[in-house]
Amino acid sequence: MMRGTGLVNRLAMLIAAVGAAMFPLAPLHAEDGYDLWLRHAPLSAVDAQAARPYLGRGVQLLGEMSPTVKLALDELGQAGERMTGLEPSPHPALVLARADRLESGGYPSDPRLAGAPPGSYSIRAVRSGRILITAHDDLGLLYGAFALIRHIGVTGTVAGVEAFSAPAMPLRMLNHWDNPDGHVERGYAGRSIFDWWHLPEKLDPRMIDYARANASVGINAVVVNNVNARGFMLEPRYIAKLKRLADTWRPYGIRVFMSARFSAPRDIGGLPTADPLDAAVAAWWRAKADEIYASIPDFGGFLVKANSEGQPGPQDYGRSHADGANMLAAALGTRGTVIWRAFVYKAEDDTDRTMQAYAEFAPLDRQFADNVILQIKNGPLDFQPREPFHPLFGAMPKTKVMLEAQITREYLGQATGMAYLAPLWKEVLAADTGRGGTVAQIVAPVGMAGVANTGSDRNWTGTHFDAANWYAFGRLAWNPALTSDQIAREWTAQTFTRAAAPREAIVQMMLGSRETVVKYTSPLGLAHLMGTGHHYGPAPWVCDLERPDWNPCYYHRADAQGIGFDRTTTGSNALAQYAPAVANQWADPATANPRYLLWFHHLPWTHRMASGRTLWDELVTTYDQGVLETEARAQGWAALAPHIDPERHAAVATDLAIQRTEARWWRNASLSFWQSLHSLPLPAGAAPIPERLEAYQARTFPEAPGQ
Amino acid sequence: MMRGTGLVNRLAMLIAAVGAAMFPLAPLHAEDGYDLWLRHAPLSAVDAQAARPYLGRGVQLLGEMSPTVKLALDELGQAGERMTGLEPSPHPALVLARADRLESGGYPSDPRLAGAPPGSYSIRAVRSGRILITAHDDLGLLYGAFALIRHIGVTGTVAGVEAFSAPAMPLRMLNHWDNPDGHVERGYAGRSIFDWWHLPEKLDPRMIDYARANASVGINAVVVNNVNARGFMLEPRYIAKLKRLADTWRPYGIRVFMSARFSAPRDIGGLPTADPLDAAVAAWWRAKADEIYASIPDFGGFLVKANSEGQPGPQDYGRSHADGANMLAAALGTRGTVIWRAFVYKAEDDTDRTMQAYAEFAPLDRQFADNVILQIKNGPLDFQPREPFHPLFGAMPKTKVMLEAQITREYLGQATGMAYLAPLWKEVLAADTGRGGTVAQIVAPVGMAGVANTGSDRNWTGTHFDAANWYAFGRLAWNPALTSDQIAREWTAQTFTRAAAPREAIVQMMLGSRETVVKYTSPLGLAHLMGTGHHYGPAPWVCDLERPDWNPCYYHRADAQGIGFDRTTTGSNALAQYAPAVANQWADPATANPRYLLWFHHLPWTHRMASGRTLWDELVTTYDQGVLETEARAQGWAALAPHIDPERHAAVATDLAIQRTEARWWRNASLSFWQSLHSLPLPAGAAPIPERLEAYQARTFPEAPGQ
Repeated sequence: MMRGTGLVNRLAMLIAAVGAAMFPLAPLHAEDGYDLWLRHAPLSAVDAQAARPYLGRGVQLLGEMSPTVKLALDELGQAGERMTGLEPSPHPALVLARADRLESGGYPSDPRLAGAPPGSYSIRAVRSGRILITAHDDLGLLYGAFALIRHIGVTGTVAGVEAFSAPAMPLRMLNHWDNPDGHVERGYAGRSIFDWWHLPEKLDPRMIDYARANASVGINAVVVNNVNARGFMLEPRYIAKLKRLADTWRPYGIRVFMSARFSAPRDIGGLPTADPLDAAVAAWWRAKADEIYASIPDFGGFLVKANSEGQPGPQDYGRSHADGANMLAAALGTRGTVIWRAFVYKAEDDTDRTMQAYAEFAPLDRQFADNVILQIKNGPLDFQPREPFHPLFGAMPKTKVMLEAQITREYLGQATGMAYLAPLWKEVLAADTGRGGTVAQIVAPVGMAGVANTGSDRNWTGTHFDAANWYAFGRLAWNPALTSDQIAREWTAQTFTRAAAPREAIVQMMLGSRETVVKYTSPLGLAHLMGTGHHYGPAPWVCDLERPDWNPCYYHRADAQGIGFDRTTTGSNALAQYAPAVANQWADPATANPRYLLWFHHLPWTHRMASGRTLWDELVTTYDQGVLETEARAQGWAALAPHIDPERHAAVATDLAIQRTEARWWRNASLSFWQSLHSLPLPAGAAPIPERLEAYQARTFPEAPGQ
Repeated sequence: MMRGTGLVNRLAMLIAAVGAAMFPLAPLHAEDGYDLWLRHAPLSAVDAQAARPYLGRGVQLLGEMSPTVKLALDELGQAGERMTGLEPSPHPALVLARADRLESGGYPSDPRLAGAPPGSYSIRAVRSGRILITAHDDLGLLYGAFALIRHIGVTGTVAGVEAFSAPAMPLRMLNHWDNPDGHVERGYAGRSIFDWWHLPEKLDPRMIDYARANASVGINAVVVNNVNARGFMLEPRYIAKLKRLADTWRPYGIRVFMSARFSAPRDIGGLPTADPLDAAVAAWWRAKADEIYASIPDFGGFLVKANSEGQPGPQDYGRSHADGANMLAAALGTRGTVIWRAFVYKAEDDTDRTMQAYAEFAPLDRQFADNVILQIKNGPLDFQPREPFHPLFGAMPKTKVMLEAQITREYLGQATGMAYLAPLWKEVLAADTGRGGTVAQIVAPVGMAGVANTGSDRNWTGTHFDAANWYAFGRLAWNPALTSDQIAREWTAQTFTRAAAPREAIVQMMLGSRETVVKYTSPLGLAHLMGTGHHYGPAPWVCDLERPDWNPCYYHRADAQGIGFDRTTTGSNALAQYAPAVANQWADPATANPRYLLWFHHLPWTHRMASGRTLWDELVTTYDQGVLETEARAQGWAALAPHIDPERHAAVATDLAIQRTEARWWRNASLSFWQSLHSLPLPAGAAPIPERLEAYQARTFPEAPGQ
């Protein structure tokens, strides 16, 4: 018997015991978020047994074993393996059936599928406890399989899975602002996921998981490169690279598009001009399109940012946006689409910047070719935490228009904290334009695009909760009638936990999170108050930039007397760009929704709000409310520790702690600046501002990401 | 009974059967390389039972439960869990003992530990089948635990684990050329692993796995930022970020260093000068050092690139490198070390560039303070595929000198193909300087640094085989007497397979892989023939860059008559910088090792080689041999498919296919250019060159990574 050092030996034995107890629980890999909402957490033993016949590769198939159908079987197999932990059932009870093969299986047709758009599917319970997924096309079967997996993933059971679902919009698209060198403009999740350098020889397996994630929420189109495009990406070697991606993504129903630099014929084509009315230019683009289609027969088309923020465009040659877009549209012909961005504003134009896109494009209605789509940002400025909807929606009835939303949080905290964006997008989609319907109705025949938030970070999106925005974007593009909380509940159940209490606590945190950011950065309709260039943190004091409309002071117009941008008839009259009924609801500061108050009105600091407070006191109260909400969210998350794996719990806790700090910073820096203008005291009870304005102004972030 | 469509149903059933058979094998996560050599593949059932008592957290501990000892237990626990798949043994037979506690456990002391350097450990078999790991310090216990795990990981058993091991060098260091914005200079594995933007609040868990990997091979120092340093990284907010890393890595025995910008007192300190002899400058650095040490008491010190490639330095003020280094050394005092890089060359100096570092520094011997280390690259040019050793080794006997090697493959294929670098480093370490020993012996009192090859890619290093270079660097810094094949065998067994036949096949592929790159890029002592800026691909024709010594033509000096750089007495006489015995062995082209032939000699194309071939024919033969070897390696790897998981097998197969293409390109482009000078025919049997020289010259790579 060995002599031991009593205490140390006992300690070592204790460790041995603890170690042994821990082993059965220790996963091989920590929860790192890579699996996104396709995590497929195990079901309870009872649920697993019940779900087993409906998951697994061994389904009955009525139809051809196409690459897309094979993916559906793979997804069902993987989901079954992970969720049930069981061998597949020897008596599978799931049937995947192409609509034209239903009869061969003895199943009735589904009349809802008649005339339904591509990708639609029905899920029906049929005889002997079978579940039947039917679609006209293989992609519908894949979408139906994902819907079944989602239903089980969310609820734990197949009960209630019956559904008919058709996409509300044909184009459900991600726009990547990814540069070929791997940098992502406004990207906060690491480097680009696209490894152009090693393509086409080397395909990162991540490209497959990316397609899976997209297909699982119905995303069916991807623009792979930044709208600030490089000409050389149209060179043959890049077409070969793109072809590898297109081939990889095709079975997932994803079409590839490219951002095209308008001056490419001059930049890489050796032509002296890129004038869209020049025959050689048109011929160059036609040949380029032919070259692309020879490699990628289902190439989607070009996204173009023209004559905006330094990008070349048709106006360089005295031509109109329609001239430019139509020339490219002719090059693509019936094979593809030109998506032309409406995000334009000019250095030499002193019109209210928010009015310039409307002024530029509304007169061009009827002038665009059939295969041109105008892509319009949700609001008339630039993806601010809140903007009124863009007045172009409804103003161009003869033009195909689509919505451009931003999934990456350029102006909403970037990759810290939490800001669930479904409520922002719902706000826009539900807005009645007064000109033929809501924004959702107006874009429904075309589609919507989201500026992607993906990156090389292991969890794809920088924070775990940013994955919810990718998910929500896809779900809303499929069905804008889904509510923000339905989507949040789905995502949370699949990503974190099916247990009702923690799930609902998380859903509630998510639902208010974007409004929190509005409160502490852009209260009461203020906008564009962020730091210069990188757009990180508060900088309302900035007023010395080269172009007036790059300055925060251009937007807040604050001075000793008041604050806000007068866009009524006494000011820029941007209101006149809206339908009268819409304009009227915002025209009077006494009745306008306070959300948009300072967007449309310049008011004295002493203006009396509906709350009874002065505008200044209301501002302070709103900032403070935002700060309080970040604190409450951090505390709420801390309380969820027993329900979340330690890795992701710790990561989110850190994110929320950072957000709490940033909210205080925004509040203090902003209030300090407003106070420097008017010298009004903080209302009673408001926390003092801990630093002098100069200290906030002195902060610099030369290495802020995403610029 | 349902009517089926016979064929389709049978197909579906077949799929069900295949799916079921696959399930038990399907891992939750694909093999993605993240675990590096700490993969801990399962042992056979017999080996697992035998190893069980020696793995697991339940060891007997004689010593304090320090953070470092806790890590050792964690590592043993994780290795046990993964390798054995068993609960820890109820009768553990592993003892970790601090040397001063051996007696309390009734164990004899180990005389080999007397006077051994920090981190040394002994592993002994003691009574009753116990294994005893002993060290003076807790880090030695951690290193010993890693050694035990490595031994079992490589051999499958504890048999033969007994060892005494002491580090050959005190400083075993990685130099990261990582910028604070996430870009890695000469990085080919994605973005920087250091997320400065989110530090200190957010610690990427990868920072822990990075420390584990380093500690497992004995690396004990890290310079976190690029030698082309930004001044702002010395600001307080960066010190807070660095502190978080230092705190995380401290238990792993890793000290942090920073690259310091010499002009920081002017850039961020508000001083009008950075003159090292200015009292205010010295005081600024002293205060900066005090500030760092207040946060990081074991801060290692500064790495400085001064007066080289545009970096500021003491010569800007007419002071010497010694003046600059000593001023910083005084600021650190006894707390830390200044590592001063010898990599200097001047635009205005027309001396042979390979001679300038020696000319600059050799006269400064005896002038450097005690806590200054001169860091010297392996060769006198710049990390070429092959160079003779740097003449400064041995030439500064009164100065502390360390070796700087490059783990990232800036000039050896970047992140494609395979190039195992241990043979390159061994070549230098084993070189006899003729001035007091081999390079290994000369740097042993100090250490060696490797320019890291890590990045955000999931497998850390871009290709799976590049992890072998990280591993080999650490192992050689610990023990330069290890052979390249020993290290390759260890790494392969832990990373891919313990099975002897495939393991040895992989080891053989690795051993020749660097020489293959030499053959197809830089045969017979040629160097610096790569593309401009990005250093990707061949460009021997480039001769129009601003500085003569940036041009490939400066190095190859090829014309119609001959090729090579005359560094004998008839040329630059760089040979005179070496000890006479060394110089003599290279002075005569008839007897010089052909490896260095054109490094030291300019010879006619018709020069007769020992092989009997002319120099031209020998060059062609060597290029062709390189190409053939890349083909053989790709074929050899293909044959290993049954032994390697499909994910990593496919990834490496792609890497090797790319390398085969690149080897042909180097061969064809280079030969085409040499031929354009002399118009000699290719030797009989040589493959024709498929394209015209102009086609090779026209290739551009504006988006090549790592620049």
